Amino acid sequence: MKIDIISLFPEFFAAFFDHSIIKRAVAANRLTMAVTNPRDFAHNKHNQVDDTPYGGGAGMLMMAPPIFEAVEHVLGVKPELPATELRKRVIFLGPTGETFNQAKARELATYDQLVLICGHYEGVDYRVEEHLVDETISIGDFVLTGGELPAMIVADAVARMIPGILGAASGAMEDSFYRPILEGPQYTKPPVYRDWSVPDVLRSGHHQNIANWRLQQALLRTLKLRPDLLDRELTGEEERAIKELKKQGLWNP
Amino acid sequence: MKIDIISLFPEFFAAFFDHSIIKRAVAANRLTMAVTNPRDFAHNKHNQVDDTPYGGGAGMLMMAPPIFEAVEHVLGVKPELPATELRKRVIFLGPTGETFNQAKARELATYDQLVLICGHYEGVDYRVEEHLVDETISIGDFVLTGGELPAMIVADAVARMIPGILGAASGAMEDSFYRPILEGPQYTKPPVYRDWSVPDVLRSGHHQNIANWRLQQALLRTLKLRPDLLDRELTGEEERAIKELKKQGLWNP
Repeated sequence: MKIDIISLFPEFFAAFFDHSIIKRAVAANRLTMAVTNPRDFAHNKHNQVDDTPYGGGAGMLMMAPPIFEAVEHVLGVKPELPATELRKRVIFLGPTGETFNQAKARELATYDQLVLICGHYEGVDYRVEEHLVDETISIGDFVLTGGELPAMIVADAVARMIPGILGAASGAMEDSFYRPILEGPQYTKPPVYRDWSVPDVLRSGHHQNIANWRLQQALLRTLKLRPDLLDRELTGEEERAIKELKKQGLWNP
Repeated sequence: MKIDIISLFPEFFAAFFDHSIIKRAVAANRLTMAVTNPRDFAHNKHNQVDDTPYGGGAGMLMMAPPIFEAVEHVLGVKPELPATELRKRVIFLGPTGETFNQAKARELATYDQLVLICGHYEGVDYRVEEHLVDETISIGDFVLTGGELPAMIVADAVARMIPGILGAASGAMEDSFYRPILEGPQYTKPPVYRDWSVPDVLRSGHHQNIANWRLQQALLRTLKLRPDLLDRELTGEEERAIKELKKQGLWNP
């Protein structure tokens, strides 16, 4: 898989490429990452990539042509040529998109090439969203300086989903949001810290009791914090755990 | 305001501090940013900060003591001392938190000190969430390698809300999510690119028509993409714009 980031600030990504799951995916030859600067595709005297908005208003907008040319460069096709059979997806990171989630990360991991366009300044000429991108993705309902952090979020979440990147030793498949339930509390050494003890059951060595306790705790946490995640058909295991919690008077939806 | 980040990977933040709104806020003496490594508070032979989970399971968990001590160090208080009158907030970035949004960014910008704890590996000993943090914040329903990118997201969104950071020249107050409506499309030069023209009204110079068009486009976009944002009392201006759109047959909820 190849992930191309289109950004005016390539140096922002150096540390990111050196950390996180990205480094592992690149080292394993499962992922190629590159940043392309639209400024390299500005055809005016001062390599200008932004200008004032038509109709007036505060701030500067990123111009469309350098972004079109940067994207077409990394896609390796001129606009008049037919697309190859590789599955490619051009994505703009912006506030008007569908909200990113784990299902989307899983879907994007099936493409051969992703192009992530980072907006900056007051926004981007709308012709980019209208005529160049396949979809716009929002990370959430908050305002950021640019699309760089959202692009890293998407790249990180997608890279984790590339087959073979997370070893079997990793607990990733147990992570929250892989299954539609939150994880319960976890503890490591020391067994007692400032009077706060690790729950006895976790130190009991009794595997079935531990598994039951973990599922119960996960269900209680999900009920408290994200009851919406339980609006679905429950597994038999979950139903048994809830029955047990009800017996103990702990299940109070 | 001071933002302290607690992370095992301080070098991940260098480029972030050098870009984005953070740099401007720091240069204006409105913000101090620092990263503290829990590894500096590990009191064992190999500066170990993680260990296997009690009860078994894949992956490693971050241990509680180095995180407690790192946080108490940056808060400048020993646990037995009373808190100062400064408003401080200790936040864990994790999947089981309330979802971050613009209202939360605005709220967090009112504190004197924020401490953002980045989890890593398979998770963090639950005693951190139970006994150390004031709240847990989630960036969204997706799995990431660690809390570093979420911490940058929170820091960026909060820094933008510190009074005096975004100049009057900036259009930030017009951004999506400041007002509960999405922004409409924006355009800059060139007026025509590959047969795609900037809408005539934006080049008309007629301020009232431009303002009306922009509000109408913003409402149409919100209706299409985020109708939930319109489930509230509308302003008189919005009601007039919707009436006009209805006359033209363009408002189809």
